[in-house]
Amino acid sequence: MLLYTVFVIALAAESMTAALAAGRRNMDWFGVCVLGSVTALGGGTTRDVLLGHYPLVWVEQPALLLVTTAAALFTIAVARVMEKLRMIFLLLDAVGLVVFTIVGCNVAMEMGQPVLIVIVAGMITGCVGGVLRDILCNDVPLLFSGELYATVSAITACIYFFGQQWGLPAELVMIVAMVIGFTLRTLAIVFKIEMPRFVYVPVRGDQSSKR
Amino acid sequence: MLLYTVFVIALAAESMTAALAAGRRNMDWFGVCVLGSVTALGGGTTRDVLLGHYPLVWVEQPALLLVTTAAALFTIAVARVMEKLRMIFLLLDAVGLVVFTIVGCNVAMEMGQPVLIVIVAGMITGCVGGVLRDILCNDVPLLFSGELYATVSAITACIYFFGQQWGLPAELVMIVAMVIGFTLRTLAIVFKIEMPRFVYVPVRGDQSSKR
Amino acid sequence: MLLYTVFVIALAAESMTAALAAGRRNMDWFGVCVLGSVTALGGGTTRDVLLGHYPLVWVEQPALLLVTTAAALFTIAVARVMEKLRMIFLLLDAVGLVVFTIVGCNVAMEMGQPVLIVIVAGMITGCVGGVLRDILCNDVPLLFSGELYATVSAITACIYFFGQQWGLPAELVMIVAMVIGFTLRTLAIVFKIEMPRFVYVPVRGDQSSKR
Repeated sequence: MLLYTVFVIALAAESMTAALAAGRRNMDWFGVCVLGSVTALGGGTTRDVLLGHYPLVWVEQPALLLVTTAAALFTIAVARVMEKLRMIFLLLDAVGLVVFTIVGCNVAMEMGQPVLIVIVAGMITGCVGGVLRDILCNDVPLLFSGELYATVSAITACIYFFGQQWGLPAELVMIVAMVIGFTLRTLAIVFKIEMPRFVYVPVRGDQSSKR
Repeated sequence: MLLYTVFVIALAAESMTAALAAGRRNMDWFGVCVLGSVTALGGGTTRDVLLGHYPLVWVEQPALLLVTTAAALFTIAVARVMEKLRMIFLLLDAVGLVVFTIVGCNVAMEMGQPVLIVIVAGMITGCVGGVLRDILCNDVPLLFSGELYATVSAITACIYFFGQQWGLPAELVMIVAMVIGFTLRTLAIVFKIEMPRFVYVPVRGDQSSKR
Repeated sequence: MLLYTVFVIALAAESMTAALAAGRRNMDWFGVCVLGSVTALGGGTTRDVLLGHYPLVWVEQPALLLVTTAAALFTIAVARVMEKLRMIFLLLDAVGLVVFTIVGCNVAMEMGQPVLIVIVAGMITGCVGGVLRDILCNDVPLLFSGELYATVSAITACIYFFGQQWGLPAELVMIVAMVIGFTLRTLAIVFKIEMPRFVYVPVRGDQSSKR
């Protein structure tokens, strides 16, 4: 099935961009493979653990671990070339975002979850991998820093869910949701569209105000 | 039921204080909602995942996600006012601590867990949300920094468990446990009572001593 | 059984070295206990949550929590002495690595998982505790920084799995795998054998290249 092929390509692409992040932190080859695999598969894993949906995708299909590990190791060889293809990887990341979102919605819908959980499951699948990558790299998650990323995932999930609710054919709705999501994300990259930020400077910047 | 009402109010209060933490890090509006929701619901989620207690609270009652998200967004509008109400939010956080602890104990007791797991389940429910908030904010968890917080949760859980073991009526024990826990936490805030710290300075401060 | 005795000793040793890490960050006594317990039990917990293997080890045997907590508290008293025994603790950590790996493989094999998942389960059990410790301490995981650690876990798991596949007696295979794994890890410590690192310096060091 087409969705599955794109899903595997997106897994490899996510693993490769995460491997670059590992390289920027001088991680060893093992760390590169772990960071790539966690980033690529972490969203789906988090979704399945939260929904109690066992076995996890990569436990059922361990070959996916080989895909993400191979992609991460391959990155070590081709890092310099990837730099020139940066726009292509940003677009592949956008493809991953919408594909993972739709895969996540599918899992929740098959479990008969209500609309809010379907959308959240799609967003978790699309976005959490990058959050785990940033935690392992000891960064504040990029996801919260203004980029139009999670919002794209939410919109894709809404179109996909409500399109099917309105009786449209599932395949058509999937393609429409993916195209709109991908276009939105591409526009956000090109025109640097950002979410508004909440900038709060406490009057007293003391430690005790942390809680 | 009274406990449930207080539980929802505490969820909103935890989400609001976490939203302020997000604002101090200039997160975008989406990040504010995620940080608020993860902080408010993360303790119960961690408990349920560790105990294998599915479905999770917010998957069963997705409306709770709306409460935490709305509370976080509302914070953006009223941040300046909240600063003046800081003591009230500290007290609401104390209410949340004891209520979440008791809710967590209830879940473990209904599963027939032994005493140690009941107390740990209560503490996880009361305390882990703040740990997740600090990890996402890239801080060392405030929970480990000396405040009398987890200890209050442990004491509350012990009173609640052993009170019922001794045959006292559940409702009375719950109220007593909550009042004692809340009082302890308030005293700890007012008198800045702290846990002793373990200060260890290695003779050789080398990298290799990390492991 | 011998494996179980060594397992409990290793739990205590892992908890004690993590407690030292907590002391270097001036955590309070509660934080010391949590960091010790999470480091010692976190690998097995992560494995069980990912495999959907309930109840977790420490939920079934809450006494293990007492072991890790007592070991962590004990560390506060004997930190100065431990420094002189540093080599012993490094060796106990190596024992823990191979024992946890084999325990993890056993769990996955009893569930009938395929080879790749058995090896990954062993590695998760052996290595993830330290990653959780580093995340809670707000460090980039030491595991990814070049030490021959996860590789030792992988080799131990492979010997253990394939030895049994080849029809050798389980106990013999276990002892051989443990001895080889322990020897490899000790050699890596003594001769400072390291994994190669992936050092990637982006041509443009801008923020936008993060994704």
